Amino acid sequence: MSEFKIVGKPIPRHDAWSKVTGDLKYADDFSLPGMLFAKVLRSKYPAAKIISIDTEKAEQLDGVQAVLTAKDVPHNETVTKFGQSTEVGKGFEGLYRVLAEKKVRFMGEAVALVAAETEEIAEKALDLIEVKYEPLPGVFDPLEAIKPDAYPVGENNTNIIGEFGCHQGDTEKGFSQADIIIEDTYKVPFVDHVYLEPEAGISWIDDYGILTIRVSTQVIEHFRDVADVLGLPHNKVRYIGTIMGGGFGGKEDITVETYLALLTWKTKKPVRLVYTREESILCHSKRHPFVMKYKVGAKKDGKLVALDAELISDAGAYPYLSPWVTLYATVNAAGPYCIPNVKVKAHCVLTNNTFTSANRGFGAPQPNVAYESIMDELSHKLNIDPLEIRRRNCLTTGKALSTTGQVFKTYIALPEVAEKAWKALGEPAGHKDENRKIGRGLAIGLMSYGRMTFLHDSSRCYVRLESDGSVLIRSGIPDLGGGQISLLCQIVAEELGVPMSQVKIYHSDTALTPLAGTTTATRQTYMSGNATLKAAREIRKRVLNKAA
Amino acid sequence: MSEFKIVGKPIPRHDAWSKVTGDLKYADDFSLPGMLFAKVLRSKYPAAKIISIDTEKAEQLDGVQAVLTAKDVPHNETVTKFGQSTEVGKGFEGLYRVLAEKKVRFMGEAVALVAAETEEIAEKALDLIEVKYEPLPGVFDPLEAIKPDAYPVGENNTNIIGEFGCHQGDTEKGFSQADIIIEDTYKVPFVDHVYLEPEAGISWIDDYGILTIRVSTQVIEHFRDVADVLGLPHNKVRYIGTIMGGGFGGKEDITVETYLALLTWKTKKPVRLVYTREESILCHSKRHPFVMKYKVGAKKDGKLVALDAELISDAGAYPYLSPWVTLYATVNAAGPYCIPNVKVKAHCVLTNNTFTSANRGFGAPQPNVAYESIMDELSHKLNIDPLEIRRRNCLTTGKALSTTGQVFKTYIALPEVAEKAWKALGEPAGHKDENRKIGRGLAIGLMSYGRMTFLHDSSRCYVRLESDGSVLIRSGIPDLGGGQISLLCQIVAEELGVPMSQVKIYHSDTALTPLAGTTTATRQTYMSGNATLKAAREIRKRVLNKAA
Repeated sequence: MSEFKIVGKPIPRHDAWSKVTGDLKYADDFSLPGMLFAKVLRSKYPAAKIISIDTEKAEQLDGVQAVLTAKDVPHNETVTKFGQSTEVGKGFEGLYRVLAEKKVRFMGEAVALVAAETEEIAEKALDLIEVKYEPLPGVFDPLEAIKPDAYPVGENNTNIIGEFGCHQGDTEKGFSQADIIIEDTYKVPFVDHVYLEPEAGISWIDDYGILTIRVSTQVIEHFRDVADVLGLPHNKVRYIGTIMGGGFGGKEDITVETYLALLTWKTKKPVRLVYTREESILCHSKRHPFVMKYKVGAKKDGKLVALDAELISDAGAYPYLSPWVTLYATVNAAGPYCIPNVKVKAHCVLTNNTFTSANRGFGAPQPNVAYESIMDELSHKLNIDPLEIRRRNCLTTGKALSTTGQVFKTYIALPEVAEKAWKALGEPAGHKDENRKIGRGLAIGLMSYGRMTFLHDSSRCYVRLESDGSVLIRSGIPDLGGGQISLLCQIVAEELGVPMSQVKIYHSDTALTPLAGTTTATRQTYMSGNATLKAAREIRKRVLNKAA
Repeated sequence: MSEFKIVGKPIPRHDAWSKVTGDLKYADDFSLPGMLFAKVLRSKYPAAKIISIDTEKAEQLDGVQAVLTAKDVPHNETVTKFGQSTEVGKGFEGLYRVLAEKKVRFMGEAVALVAAETEEIAEKALDLIEVKYEPLPGVFDPLEAIKPDAYPVGENNTNIIGEFGCHQGDTEKGFSQADIIIEDTYKVPFVDHVYLEPEAGISWIDDYGILTIRVSTQVIEHFRDVADVLGLPHNKVRYIGTIMGGGFGGKEDITVETYLALLTWKTKKPVRLVYTREESILCHSKRHPFVMKYKVGAKKDGKLVALDAELISDAGAYPYLSPWVTLYATVNAAGPYCIPNVKVKAHCVLTNNTFTSANRGFGAPQPNVAYESIMDELSHKLNIDPLEIRRRNCLTTGKALSTTGQVFKTYIALPEVAEKAWKALGEPAGHKDENRKIGRGLAIGLMSYGRMTFLHDSSRCYVRLESDGSVLIRSGIPDLGGGQISLLCQIVAEELGVPMSQVKIYHSDTALTPLAGTTTATRQTYMSGNATLKAAREIRKRVLNKAA
């Protein structure tokens, strides 16, 4: 790294000052004259038939400008087909419904939207909407929901929305060679993202009739989905992404945008919608609970010989990214260990819980709990040091991922990193106080970063050298608060040999900045970083050519 | 034209609806919360020494947030060097001064700026600024100003800021062959642009410290000049151009932007400045008055043999584009006529009048008055039909421009156009009413369009085909109200075979749209039209390749 002057150096982010002083306008800090306030009526039941919705009283309340239900949404249902054929699973469909129709599927599901002149009036209007429900039993445990005669969460007979499998070697033979077999079932719960900034945005129609949405999102490309919901051409919807106060995958799906778009389109006025913390926790996506039945066989020396795993993921009430997350979990099920005989089956199941979707790690953290618990159990039962048993099994360069057989050609630093980490922990501390227990542990995780090649990932960037030597960047890159836009500035400053103060970036606007793809999967440093580097290099080349 | 479906067809402009309904926000229709109102203190004298400026009382007035004079402007003087060596003149310098310093040069020159919480307070504050002037004689007639001992308008000894000349053939010999010689002096006055929308804009600092100026301008590239005045890097100033309510060259120079920028930079608040009509007429640029001494020699049959012309243009108090305008007038001095022996001399002179600059035609209309008056006089004296005498002399394909010798290779439709126009006028109407006189006349003009090749003109455009087939354009093109942005939509719609309703354009933003150059000199249809056409063709090619 020594040849770099700016990249990799501990320099202030280009937006540090505006954050510290509070100048930076997050999604919630922005308002427009004549703006309306939106509120969402949410289902009190996790499972119920909607008998009727009467919005008349709400509409008549002074200051209410719009009350919308499913019948007012031009395209209330969107079916996304995940058509890719992978080695581990077949294609599947994902239903997204803007407002509840026929029946509600989870407690907190959006049933109606209100836009009013004040937040208080909007709240009051929610109380005046009369929804008649017929409560239904529902199903909340994925192990129940997976059964053939389970309560159907959606309109289909089955709750299974994705099935995946990996198979390498011969597990039967593998287990027959094992000196020790451990079987256990592991469960992980829902996890909320709990970003500092809840879901928030404001929408308006610009001078030319463009529906513009300024929103905290990891995926500005959802402008297309919003356009499809409203039945508008894609170029009539524009997203302006704000710097986020955290995302962690929770702003990877649409949050407030469709609601904003519908209300602005109806009223032709600016509309603001910011979730309360309660609302965010009640009704936005969570990390998937998994039930993981693991069976592992090993030799006396700790060498793993077989793994049989079954994963059941709780998708909650709507698919969203659940099949993808479950697919990633399947591939990650054996962790960073070499196991010659592996069988993994995974099921993704709808329940009447809050829907689940992307959340840091995207399916990798859940099986991690299972395989690392088993490694510790093996270490204990075989009386082998926890580090040593991992060292004996862990992936090294040239070895293959146990679930898929993918051979790693790049350098794997895992063994020496684990060794260093263990040494750095030092000797266990003595227990001076009976009431105080100090433990220490080691766990290794596996997760895939970046985009899979089959998604044909790409990014774009525009770099302009001004006539005074200052530089302007345009990139569609959304910034989670993680410094995504600052890193592009660093790359350009480094490459063109200008100070950071001379670099300015405009970002996250679907109409005005080149689309850079989603800020998810830790892909932006690699994808948009390289797009930016290439643009800067081209400028450098041209300047040097002129100078020569 | 018959093969076109959209280009050249009488279709509604893409922004017609927003104009008719009043939705379109011109520069004046835009405001921001916490915005301040700016006013400009203007000199009461056309020529005076500034002894002192006391702003203390104004600053103490409640609601006043800033009072600025020349000393507060980081770079109050900008000297633009026009270094191009042309065949008709040498390089020259143009001084631009933000606020008056040392002495005032014209009545209405900006002396101080005020930003206050209301327009009324700003007005009051102007009255409280105490400026002590020592009136000076000044000079108001370019024929006086050109004299060696004339009152010096600026800081130099001479008022001449540009001299140009064209010489073809031998005028002495030419006049000696003439059967008739006419000599006369013609004068044309100041002309104001009188656009419906006066000079207007609003500025603010965005979340990242970028000085943003939303302004009615023909040249968004002035962001660089504003940055230079403030001593900021160019990428720290952004222009957002509005659809103009007319420009006619009067919004080709900086108008309110520098004042806005200074006041926003000082107060860190949004600032609004809209000229009153009086202010616009008093202190913004005008068309140049010219004094034109013409001597023309012709044969009995009306054929022109010699022209000797001297042009003196009144630049007013500051150069702005005066040297260029005078250069263009020099080249156009002989009009569209073949004259074998030509001598033109032109002088551009400072006076204490309001400064002059670009105004429809850019130097072409002034000599037009002279040479067409002479053509009529010749027609009268030689008793040759006015059309016929023009027909005998006018340029045709293969002939050369009389001033520069430039041979026209392209088709010149002048003779038949004139013939058709004359016929279309029909017979002179009878005079039924003694108090009512009906005349009819014919005049031919010459002017150069587009940019001269030596300026290395270029334009850029971005076209994106959305995944649903709708199209998005980005172009820095400013729209005078003349439909500049609509024409790019037409070109794209035509080329990609989509209806106009499926094309959306984002325009005139120095940070976010590719720079397309100035909307001046009737260059945009050709320059940006072709850039857009090329982009659309590339998309069409790629789509067809994919489909094949």
